[in-house]
Amino acid sequence: MPNYRMLLQYDGTRYAGWQKQGNTDRTIQGKLETLLSRVCEETVEVAGAGRTDAGVHAAGQVANFRLQRAWDAETLREKMQRYLPEDVAVLCLEEAPERFHSRLNARGKTYEYRIWNDPVPNVFERRFLTWIQEPLDTDRMGLAAAEFLGTRDFRAFCSLKRYKKSTVRHIERLDVSRQGAEVRITATGDGFLYHMVRILAGTLIEVGRGERRPEDMAGILNSLNREEAGATAPPQGLILRSVRYDNPIFVD
Amino acid sequence: MPNYRMLLQYDGTRYAGWQKQGNTDRTIQGKLETLLSRVCEETVEVAGAGRTDAGVHAAGQVANFRLQRAWDAETLREKMQRYLPEDVAVLCLEEAPERFHSRLNARGKTYEYRIWNDPVPNVFERRFLTWIQEPLDTDRMGLAAAEFLGTRDFRAFCSLKRYKKSTVRHIERLDVSRQGAEVRITATGDGFLYHMVRILAGTLIEVGRGERRPEDMAGILNSLNREEAGATAPPQGLILRSVRYDNPIFVD
Repeated sequence: MPNYRMLLQYDGTRYAGWQKQGNTDRTIQGKLETLLSRVCEETVEVAGAGRTDAGVHAAGQVANFRLQRAWDAETLREKMQRYLPEDVAVLCLEEAPERFHSRLNARGKTYEYRIWNDPVPNVFERRFLTWIQEPLDTDRMGLAAAEFLGTRDFRAFCSLKRYKKSTVRHIERLDVSRQGAEVRITATGDGFLYHMVRILAGTLIEVGRGERRPEDMAGILNSLNREEAGATAPPQGLILRSVRYDNPIFVD
Repeated sequence: MPNYRMLLQYDGTRYAGWQKQGNTDRTIQGKLETLLSRVCEETVEVAGAGRTDAGVHAAGQVANFRLQRAWDAETLREKMQRYLPEDVAVLCLEEAPERFHSRLNARGKTYEYRIWNDPVPNVFERRFLTWIQEPLDTDRMGLAAAEFLGTRDFRAFCSLKRYKKSTVRHIERLDVSRQGAEVRITATGDGFLYHMVRILAGTLIEVGRGERRPEDMAGILNSLNREEAGATAPPQGLILRSVRYDNPIFVD
């Protein structure tokens, strides 16, 4: 069965997240499966690299699907784009090696959390920013962020209560930068637990407000207790920027 | 009566344009007057520099209003922002000279028309871009744009049929630039007729598609006939960028 992979962008505002939920069509995965099944006249299942939450966006989501009948990749991309709503785009579509799986083969993911830190709101990008009026101390946030680098048990940064699998993850990059009124938290790691990036962002925001100290981060990690970490930051500031694999994809 | 001026930004998607229409609240002017009248507990009339159409945006609209009772400008700005919807922002508010009028004193305005020129749509900025999939020849568009510079009768570029006032306007800048997939038409002039920027953009798009030649522009101008010019380009690509006055405003 030929296997295809695609690079996707979406404005997550209107959606209940990536993952299909029963019969609802308000998920990105559900929309794509319904569309591909109609276009290809067979039942198609789509696997995504990152299961973005409700309201979370993607600039570089990767997904793959198998078909009984082979299609020319560019013809299929154009056909999909014609029927997709205006808040979802297929940037690239190509045939993939038979065993490629977008999630199982992913070696790393980069997420960005964008904050508009100004007394005056940003009307044009408001759907992709979390607005915080009080000034954030990004130097302190950066010091706190550095405490999370490396291989750690992030159980305190996971919203699922009874999580049976390992909560150990490796974070290779977590930094905080400011450009004018925008504060951006960039996180790269081998994988992230449920709500993990938003809880990290929420905790760093509390540091930026002076409610917590950078040196408190180690204690939160060691507690393994969700209640010790900060609030889960709102979804609209979060975007899945890119997914990394061993071999480069979509290269031509 | 103290006079105030403000610098405004809005996402025009949800609105029926700047100008108040009877009792509707779906205009920017209507929203601002209702809000200011409530906050200041007196009837307030707001004058705007540019009467943006339905669906058109503003990054630098200037408006002024007079009050019976003086207010501290920053207090008033904060109060307004608290009650404004998230698609309208007051960037600055300051007391203005008694005789200042945002429209009558305006010496020039700059509009931008933004086009996303790519087979793949832009999901994040789609509300502020007109999507054109077929490649546009921006060199040809630039040559055509240069034909409109100077003081001309733009009657062929005005949607109002029986327009009794002068249709002569001075355009000091009209250029076409491309940055990646985005094509931007920038227009600066002493004033623009009803739909003028959108008809100029629509005509330049037809040049970019090869449907018209740059050397056809002079004939369209000379015809003084709306039917000779191109289609009115859709509103969502248009944004009022800035308004110029003799004396600089909002300088501190």
